[in-house]
Amino acid sequence: MSTSERDYIRSIERGFAVLLAFDEHNPSPSLGELASGTGLSRPAVRRILLTLQRLGYVTGTDGRWSLTPRVLSIGQHYSATHTLTDTATPHLLALAETAGESASLGVLDGTEVVYAARVPVRRIMSINVSVGTRVPAYATSMGQALLAWTDAGTVDAAIGATDFRALTPRTITDPTVFRDRLADVRTDGYATSIEELELGLVSVAAPVRDAVGRVIGVIACSSSTGRSDPADFLAATAPRVVDTAKALSRDLGLTTGQEARAGGV
Amino acid sequence: MSTSERDYIRSIERGFAVLLAFDEHNPSPSLGELASGTGLSRPAVRRILLTLQRLGYVTGTDGRWSLTPRVLSIGQHYSATHTLTDTATPHLLALAETAGESASLGVLDGTEVVYAARVPVRRIMSINVSVGTRVPAYATSMGQALLAWTDAGTVDAAIGATDFRALTPRTITDPTVFRDRLADVRTDGYATSIEELELGLVSVAAPVRDAVGRVIGVIACSSSTGRSDPADFLAATAPRVVDTAKALSRDLGLTTGQEARAGGV
Repeated sequence: MSTSERDYIRSIERGFAVLLAFDEHNPSPSLGELASGTGLSRPAVRRILLTLQRLGYVTGTDGRWSLTPRVLSIGQHYSATHTLTDTATPHLLALAETAGESASLGVLDGTEVVYAARVPVRRIMSINVSVGTRVPAYATSMGQALLAWTDAGTVDAAIGATDFRALTPRTITDPTVFRDRLADVRTDGYATSIEELELGLVSVAAPVRDAVGRVIGVIACSSSTGRSDPADFLAATAPRVVDTAKALSRDLGLTTGQEARAGGV
Repeated sequence: MSTSERDYIRSIERGFAVLLAFDEHNPSPSLGELASGTGLSRPAVRRILLTLQRLGYVTGTDGRWSLTPRVLSIGQHYSATHTLTDTATPHLLALAETAGESASLGVLDGTEVVYAARVPVRRIMSINVSVGTRVPAYATSMGQALLAWTDAGTVDAAIGATDFRALTPRTITDPTVFRDRLADVRTDGYATSIEELELGLVSVAAPVRDAVGRVIGVIACSSSTGRSDPADFLAATAPRVVDTAKALSRDLGLTTGQEARAGGV
C-alpha cells in the first residue's frame, strides 16, 4: 500500500508530534513551548493535549504538562510483539556477566539504531542509554554491523539519508570510506568502533540472524577508554559478543548450515 | 482544563487504538483482524495504518502488519523526561546484586503499576516482565506500596475502578480487607505479597519519595516460592528494598527530617 494525501490523517501526525516534543531538554513544557516546539498553533496544541490527557498519556498541572507512565506501555507493545527482545535477555545477562560491561541488543530503524534491550552493569561512569534510545548507525559498531549484512537497497537509502557529520575526530565522514568499513565488517564477522560516536567510547557488535539467515539485530558491548585499553577490550570482548550473537541466532532457529552460508564467520 | 466533546480529537484516539491492538496474542495482524480487534471499519483502519506506516511506526508485508522499533522510542520519551528512572538504575543494580533477584522500579497509573525500570538477574525461571509491562495494583506489593501513601481521593478512585478479581486463592478480593492491608503497609513501611498475583510469586516493595516527601514510585524485588522460602526471602530482602528506596529518595532530594515526617519508618 502507498499513502495518498487523501489517506493520510494529519491529526494523528500532530498528536505524535506533540507527544514527542516532551524530551530531556524540556520535560514539563507549557502549551506555548509545545506550540513553538512543534510549529503548531496554540489552539491546535491545546486540543491535542486535552485529547492526550483524556487518553492518559499526558497530565497537566499549573500550566506545565508532562508525560505519564502510560507512554512507556506504548513502547512495550513492540517488545511484546517481537520475540527477539525476550529471547535476547538471558544472552545479554550472560554476556554482561562475563564481559563485565553493559550488553545491548540493537535494531535498525532507517539511519539509526534503537536499543531494544539492555543489561546494565554497575559503574560509576556508565553509558547513559535506555531501551528506546536512538544512536546514528554510521558512527556506531551496532549500526555498522546492522548495515554490513543488509540488502544493497536499504544500505544505499541509509547512506543517502545520512549526513556523515564528524561527531569526534574519528567519525567516518566519507560515504566511500563507510562502504569500505562495511566490507571489512563482513570479512571480520563483527564491527568495532573506537571513539567514532563519542570520545572515550569503544564498542563491538555482532549480527543476530533469524531462522532464514537474515540479520535482524545486533548484540553489542561497550566500554570506556578510561577503563580498558581499547585494543585489549576489543580482543577480549569481540569473540564473546560474536558467540553471544550466534547463540541467540540459534535460539531464534538458525541452523549451523545456514550460519555457515550466511556469515562465512 | 477539562475536555469538551468539541475539543476531543477522535482520530488520535483511533490511531492509538490501532497501535495498541498489536500485542503478544497477535503480533502481525491483518487489516481485517485489526478492524475486528478495534471495532473500527476496515476503511478507517486502512487509513490509520497508512498514516502510521508513513510515520514509521508500522510496516506491512504480504497483508500482515507489525510494529517497528520506532514504537520503542515513544516510550523512551517518558524515561528521558523523568529523572526518576535514570537515578534509580544504579540503586536497582546494587539491589539485584545483593538480593540475587531481579529488582524493579514501579510507578502508579490509575489501577495499575507500570514497570519504569528493571534490572534482571539470570535465572532459568525468571519473571517475564519488561519496562512498560503493567500489573494490577491491588494484587501486587508494588501497587499496595504505591497506594498506601497516596492521597485518599486517588485511593478511593483506584479502589472504585478495581474489580478485585481472584487471580489466585490468596488475592485480596474485598475492598475493606484491601484498605486494612494499606494501613498495615503504612505501619510496616513496606508491602509484601505472597502469591496474590500468581502462584509461586513472592515480592516486597518500598516507597520512593521525591524532595517534598510525596511517594512517586516503588522499589521492588521478587522471587519464586520454589527458589526460596517466602518468609526467609521476605525477612532477608525487605530491609534491603527499604534501604534501596530510601537511598534513591535521598538522591532525589529527600532530607532525613522529611523522611522521618513522611514515613514514620
